[in-house]
Amino acid sequence: MKFSITAILNYNVIEASTLILNIHPSSKNQKLLHESFLVAGKHQTVELENDTEGTRLIRSAVDVAGALNYSYAGLVDNSWHTVNFENVDEMPVSEFSPEILTYLYPSRYCQSDKLFRFANHQFGNVENPFEKVLAVAEWINKNVEYLSGSTNAETSAYDTVTQQAGVCRDFAHLGIALCRALTIPARYCSVYAYQLQPQDFHACFEVYLNGHWVLFDATRLVPLNGLVKIAVGRDAADTAIANIFGNIQLESMVVNSQLTEGKFIPFSYEIGKFDGIIYE
Amino acid sequence: MKFSITAILNYNVIEASTLILNIHPSSKNQKLLHESFLVAGKHQTVELENDTEGTRLIRSAVDVAGALNYSYAGLVDNSWHTVNFENVDEMPVSEFSPEILTYLYPSRYCQSDKLFRFANHQFGNVENPFEKVLAVAEWINKNVEYLSGSTNAETSAYDTVTQQAGVCRDFAHLGIALCRALTIPARYCSVYAYQLQPQDFHACFEVYLNGHWVLFDATRLVPLNGLVKIAVGRDAADTAIANIFGNIQLESMVVNSQLTEGKFIPFSYEIGKFDGIIYE
Amino acid sequence: MKFSITAILNYNVIEASTLILNIHPSSKNQKLLHESFLVAGKHQTVELENDTEGTRLIRSAVDVAGALNYSYAGLVDNSWHTVNFENVDEMPVSEFSPEILTYLYPSRYCQSDKLFRFANHQFGNVENPFEKVLAVAEWINKNVEYLSGSTNAETSAYDTVTQQAGVCRDFAHLGIALCRALTIPARYCSVYAYQLQPQDFHACFEVYLNGHWVLFDATRLVPLNGLVKIAVGRDAADTAIANIFGNIQLESMVVNSQLTEGKFIPFSYEIGKFDGIIYE
Amino acid sequence: MKFSITAILNYNVIEASTLILNIHPSSKNQKLLHESFLVAGKHQTVELENDTEGTRLIRSAVDVAGALNYSYAGLVDNSWHTVNFENVDEMPVSEFSPEILTYLYPSRYCQSDKLFRFANHQFGNVENPFEKVLAVAEWINKNVEYLSGSTNAETSAYDTVTQQAGVCRDFAHLGIALCRALTIPARYCSVYAYQLQPQDFHACFEVYLNGHWVLFDATRLVPLNGLVKIAVGRDAADTAIANIFGNIQLESMVVNSQLTEGKFIPFSYEIGKFDGIIYE
Repeated sequence: MKFSITAILNYNVIEASTLILNIHPSSKNQKLLHESFLVAGKHQTVELENDTEGTRLIRSAVDVAGALNYSYAGLVDNSWHTVNFENVDEMPVSEFSPEILTYLYPSRYCQSDKLFRFANHQFGNVENPFEKVLAVAEWINKNVEYLSGSTNAETSAYDTVTQQAGVCRDFAHLGIALCRALTIPARYCSVYAYQLQPQDFHACFEVYLNGHWVLFDATRLVPLNGLVKIAVGRDAADTAIANIFGNIQLESMVVNSQLTEGKFIPFSYEIGKFDGIIYE
Repeated sequence: MKFSITAILNYNVIEASTLILNIHPSSKNQKLLHESFLVAGKHQTVELENDTEGTRLIRSAVDVAGALNYSYAGLVDNSWHTVNFENVDEMPVSEFSPEILTYLYPSRYCQSDKLFRFANHQFGNVENPFEKVLAVAEWINKNVEYLSGSTNAETSAYDTVTQQAGVCRDFAHLGIALCRALTIPARYCSVYAYQLQPQDFHACFEVYLNGHWVLFDATRLVPLNGLVKIAVGRDAADTAIANIFGNIQLESMVVNSQLTEGKFIPFSYEIGKFDGIIYE
Repeated sequence: MKFSITAILNYNVIEASTLILNIHPSSKNQKLLHESFLVAGKHQTVELENDTEGTRLIRSAVDVAGALNYSYAGLVDNSWHTVNFENVDEMPVSEFSPEILTYLYPSRYCQSDKLFRFANHQFGNVENPFEKVLAVAEWINKNVEYLSGSTNAETSAYDTVTQQAGVCRDFAHLGIALCRALTIPARYCSVYAYQLQPQDFHACFEVYLNGHWVLFDATRLVPLNGLVKIAVGRDAADTAIANIFGNIQLESMVVNSQLTEGKFIPFSYEIGKFDGIIYE
Repeated sequence: MKFSITAILNYNVIEASTLILNIHPSSKNQKLLHESFLVAGKHQTVELENDTEGTRLIRSAVDVAGALNYSYAGLVDNSWHTVNFENVDEMPVSEFSPEILTYLYPSRYCQSDKLFRFANHQFGNVENPFEKVLAVAEWINKNVEYLSGSTNAETSAYDTVTQQAGVCRDFAHLGIALCRALTIPARYCSVYAYQLQPQDFHACFEVYLNGHWVLFDATRLVPLNGLVKIAVGRDAADTAIANIFGNIQLESMVVNSQLTEGKFIPFSYEIGKFDGIIYE
């Protein structure tokens, strides 16, 4: 399906600084049909080399104080499909490549090592791995309250599992930490999300099942098939919309995702069904 | 029932130090029929004035390095009884005295403020307050593994709720924190425990229901009616067996509790019964 | 000196709740020359019995939703004086009463047990106990940034010592934790503060030196002799302006402290001077 | 210089499990002159594909309980040299590649985001970047006590900065976290260390200065030029000697590093000198 994506971010540079921006849709597994990207202000902006996941980082070095305005627009064909995991067993660790193993290890916001007993007590008895991750997402959805402003940039899965309030970022971190504690590789995924109310950047998580990265969203705020992927990483530390080194303040931000043609039939997971959504 | 209590603690004083010992059975609500207390070593030892809960602190000021040996023996008649809480409602906060209110506030090891949502999600729907605390104790017993050496003096309820391993102290802290988060006053209780294997000091917790302090033990390691109380407090910070200021090392410790007469009929809680045990 | 104190707190009760208010000046060691206290709204409000520190708790039980407005005005003669600690040694633990010992133990927001090495590395070499606490307050003042909104109700000394931003409450908690780690009893003190900009409730801390509770304020925002004490306790958990059980929201608050007669000569600590301020 | 390296690790497999071993010297920037590697026990062991840093992972899938014994011996020519950083400025973020940027972000054990103010208060005024990192290492060495058993697998830099006790792993994590907080890319480095007493695996950290990864060791336990590198990563989560999935217990371990020829002239850093050691 084709989505028209817009992101406008207006910053105020207080002193010479560098900003690493990560709002361009990933170049992997989705078609970028058309793009425009404008930067206004005194700056030196370059696109850094993509990594193997198609992450597209923009770096602006700004020498003087003043406005720094980004405007991105893109037409993206996300190409999702579903795979059935009903008769799929859990992959043994011995089948993971070194690259995949990385997503089993704890990270800044996903301290899976501290959640081992909790995860196994709560979800250990679910046999089917897809069902197990679905149970994780359900538990989060049921127990964690979506509450804007309840968390900050330092909040991690270890906090959220007990404090039980947060935003999409926290929901994703908790999902990732619990899955890793269950020996299921899991990673963070920043996205544009069609039908998100109010429109904003969104976060969800992917787990590695039977050779596929399957997408889950414990917030249940959006259909799973209306996403345009920006970046994947171990957690939000790897996939920040903007990493600022120096002193730059965000003044305003507008994010938008629109369907450009066809009819949208929302796809969500249901208990008892085993079709997982995959963006590849 | 009468219990013969023994505690022998042998310390090695490295340099001039002060030790506050809290191993004497509380003088409140139990009969101290006979006692002996010996201290060997160069020291100035005094018994401090009891507080309103009958806590008996011993203070030894030691000026020189060397051995410091305590030997306590006592014959104590613990006088427990049960109260039925089947038709008892939760006490409104407006009926708590300032002294009781203290046990609603978070403390060092019982960060009830951080467990508010967790506690209410997990236990909020249980109506009867006795049953609610029983559900808390059951949940802890089922989910937290009793594992010697898994925790240390800094471990708190906030850790235990997710890491799910600990010893009696950690079980008690978590019970207290969850009850406070449910607006039920709760306090820590250090005790001698008959039939504890291996023999050692033990910890449990008390909650304030309908004007009584009712005892709970999430470890389920001992009968609830074989206890001799030492001290109550907000948490282990208030009720340490020994608080050491300076440099003193514990060399060895022997703790023992024996029934001296009569037949012991162990009392435990059961789901569906509402008889709470009270030591008053 | 005489101060005219005003505090107006307007709450919105969402559902039946209880509020414990602690805004009345302490009845200990200061003269309450005149007072008025008004409560508007449907409520049952009583003043609870004072504790030994003269803490005056007000409890409102509210059965119906609606406004709950408190208005306190008082004329208070604070009676401070200074004591010189130049030739005063640190008190040995063996001279502390059980009541004082309590203020050596870690509490919810003051995890002194976790700061033992830090405190002793940083301040252990200062001999004079008054100078040592002054060094603690200086270090906090120099390293911790006073930044409104940087912390929340869960922030503790363990966070502040490294994150180094906070408000008066956090400054006090860190001062207390460091002093306890240095075996100096320390407690939290909520106050009205003359010349605080903007006017608000304030917090500082007291340490126990040579039999006196000496006041320190690591924020350096106000003169030390313009305070009217409200409550003392282990930390903010004991001395909250309002403890709310149920659902009540603060709508607005006005706090004021005015000098009513005489000339105010501000008193502050200086490095190299050993006069400590005492409110007793 | 040539070192003869030995590592013998004996495990007891309790149930079918997978172990990822990382004890082989890195194949990058050092010469592996001779190697032998033996595995005893029922297992399927393979060497996984090296990553760009030359990390050599060994994976053993074990289906049955029993002994699993690894024996590695290697002759390695480590090729270090020094680079002078006296007149070197700090690299601006705008010169870092995406790969290097990764080492600026917080990770599981190195929560640099929470140490920003602390690091900048303590070290922000040192101009020369080499001197700045040296000051970080000095501060850690002076303030953190090397104390076996004082920490565990969950201890992170955020703990160590205040608790101030730990082992080489903790010293490295704190160094990394503080450097990242100072906008200096930093990574964890597991090594064989000549003259380490007692012989064991060791950990240190590398920072990215002027295009080089310069090695630092806050423990000061060994000469900086007697190392053989095993792996680099964000922190210990990436570079564990063994990652165990299942139930395998370490029974015994012997590690050894011997100089095989020539004379060893130990190299260490000194305040006031700017020669950094580089293994490339």
